[in-house]
Amino acid sequence: MEPEEASEVRALLRYEEESAGRLMSTDIAALRRQWTAAEALDYLRSLEEAETLHYLYVVDRRHHLIGVVPIRSLILARPDATVASIMVPDVVSVQVTADQEEMAEFISRYDFVAIPVVDAQNHLLGVITVDDALDVLAEEATEDIQRLGGSEPLANPYFAVSIWQVVAKRVVWLLPLFAASILTDTVVSVYGGLLQTFVILTLFIPVVSATGGNAGSQTVATIIRAIAVGDVRLADLGRAWVRELSIGIILGIILGAAGLIRALLFGADFTVAIVLGLTLPLVIVVANSLATLFPIVAERLNLDPTVVSAPLITTLVDATGLFIYFTLASLLLQ
Amino acid sequence: MEPEEASEVRALLRYEEESAGRLMSTDIAALRRQWTAAEALDYLRSLEEAETLHYLYVVDRRHHLIGVVPIRSLILARPDATVASIMVPDVVSVQVTADQEEMAEFISRYDFVAIPVVDAQNHLLGVITVDDALDVLAEEATEDIQRLGGSEPLANPYFAVSIWQVVAKRVVWLLPLFAASILTDTVVSVYGGLLQTFVILTLFIPVVSATGGNAGSQTVATIIRAIAVGDVRLADLGRAWVRELSIGIILGIILGAAGLIRALLFGADFTVAIVLGLTLPLVIVVANSLATLFPIVAERLNLDPTVVSAPLITTLVDATGLFIYFTLASLLLQ
Repeated sequence: MEPEEASEVRALLRYEEESAGRLMSTDIAALRRQWTAAEALDYLRSLEEAETLHYLYVVDRRHHLIGVVPIRSLILARPDATVASIMVPDVVSVQVTADQEEMAEFISRYDFVAIPVVDAQNHLLGVITVDDALDVLAEEATEDIQRLGGSEPLANPYFAVSIWQVVAKRVVWLLPLFAASILTDTVVSVYGGLLQTFVILTLFIPVVSATGGNAGSQTVATIIRAIAVGDVRLADLGRAWVRELSIGIILGIILGAAGLIRALLFGADFTVAIVLGLTLPLVIVVANSLATLFPIVAERLNLDPTVVSAPLITTLVDATGLFIYFTLASLLLQ
Repeated sequence: MEPEEASEVRALLRYEEESAGRLMSTDIAALRRQWTAAEALDYLRSLEEAETLHYLYVVDRRHHLIGVVPIRSLILARPDATVASIMVPDVVSVQVTADQEEMAEFISRYDFVAIPVVDAQNHLLGVITVDDALDVLAEEATEDIQRLGGSEPLANPYFAVSIWQVVAKRVVWLLPLFAASILTDTVVSVYGGLLQTFVILTLFIPVVSATGGNAGSQTVATIIRAIAVGDVRLADLGRAWVRELSIGIILGIILGAAGLIRALLFGADFTVAIVLGLTLPLVIVVANSLATLFPIVAERLNLDPTVVSAPLITTLVDATGLFIYFTLASLLLQ
């Protein structure tokens, strides 16, 4: 590395990982407000690097950010017009310590092509262009998807990580989920007597688990993405819950009816069919509730909401669903 | 809408949904190669709209795209230099019919701030800026996440769609998955006799399902994202499979050992513990294989790989896993 490059890299490394400071380019064309348009153009011509000039930022003597000049305004201006007279004084900027994801959302929301980076005293430090924001958003989506699938995100592209690294990222979730599923065994073993008397109940254990898991997986994916893009916030907790409860009730009625028919087709007597027909709506409502509340509560606790993965919801719904199933069965059958 | 705007909108609507044509802006500053730099700057000054001039494209008499001029080169040029002498003749462009996702990946890969859109005859039709690409990539990630969770993507932000629309998008997957889980019931009912003789086997039905589902969910999320960002292609099918098989074998050994211990702790005799300890590695390997092959094959069949959702893999793994479990049990126990 050239000495100059090395010192630039060192400067960027002073900022925290995943901060705007790490991402910004420090090659910026900064104008002074008392310059004339002709002087500003001369300055641009003198720049060594062939950088793209999206916006030209204006700074004062102590390098505070005070305005922005679109390149077209500069070309259009009379040569003796001052920069101060053509600049736009209200500049939107981000703090150098800002989280890169926040910053990328910000750029995305306002359709900016570039955004200046400043410190707490409003000194201009660099610029982040939208192509960097693009990379950040793609990376964050990759992480969210991997987490949602129930594994820790890989640090590099798929074929660029070793098999052992993948194993490590997955086993840290597989083992706890395996342990958590002991809850399900416990529920099944508590109702062992019931299952021995009514063997047909065993037949529908998988469909109760699967339907609850599917409903939970649908909901958690939707809610987590809605949180990530800012459609659902902490304040929406109640609203989102009521919404998912309503959706769960409607889906539950449909699937409950399907379950009733299925049980009868499989030769279950009417009471067992009723048990399945009542269990499915309840399981779906529980699944939708957990899948809505957990990610929003995680966010409230300052955890990444994606720690609530589809497999985690599935595991919790499994035990709850079977508990509901067996409880209804023992109430109605005995 | 103003008449001019209306005619612009009509023009864009001629292009297919989700194509580059729908996304492009037709306000473009196009230069002619025989112009001088001074003439080009005069032309820019004459433009009515205050558009940002990221790149200036050069066209010939019949509006074919023949080059690009960075704004800085124009400012830097002697006033009498021709555009032809300062333009870069190799311009990367996209076809107006190109899929928006492909186009966005393209912009993202090359870190462009804008890209010109041309028709089959290379006529310059418009320009797409990176902020549009950003919106496309965010939208596609949202769709992928919702599909991965097992529901059809919502057309609008979470709170902007009606409850009935959400129900419709989810039930189209919940019902087929519910039907597919009949396969699981069938497996359980075929082995009904075995379950009555060895009741303890019932206890581990949920953990076999859950572990297979979790492993499949982890893999399908990783593979689908890797396909979306271009890390895994059709040609990588074999390589990805070998990789996931290896990962599955390692995870299987770990979880198999955990399963063996768990079965013994729950009072199962050693043979039943062996059955569980052998089932789990096999289920994980099957889950990883299906979760790798299905999305890649879907892509080969020109289907969106995300039609292979985590719930779909879970459902298929459920039946296969229990089949393996009961087959091993009847071989070793009888």
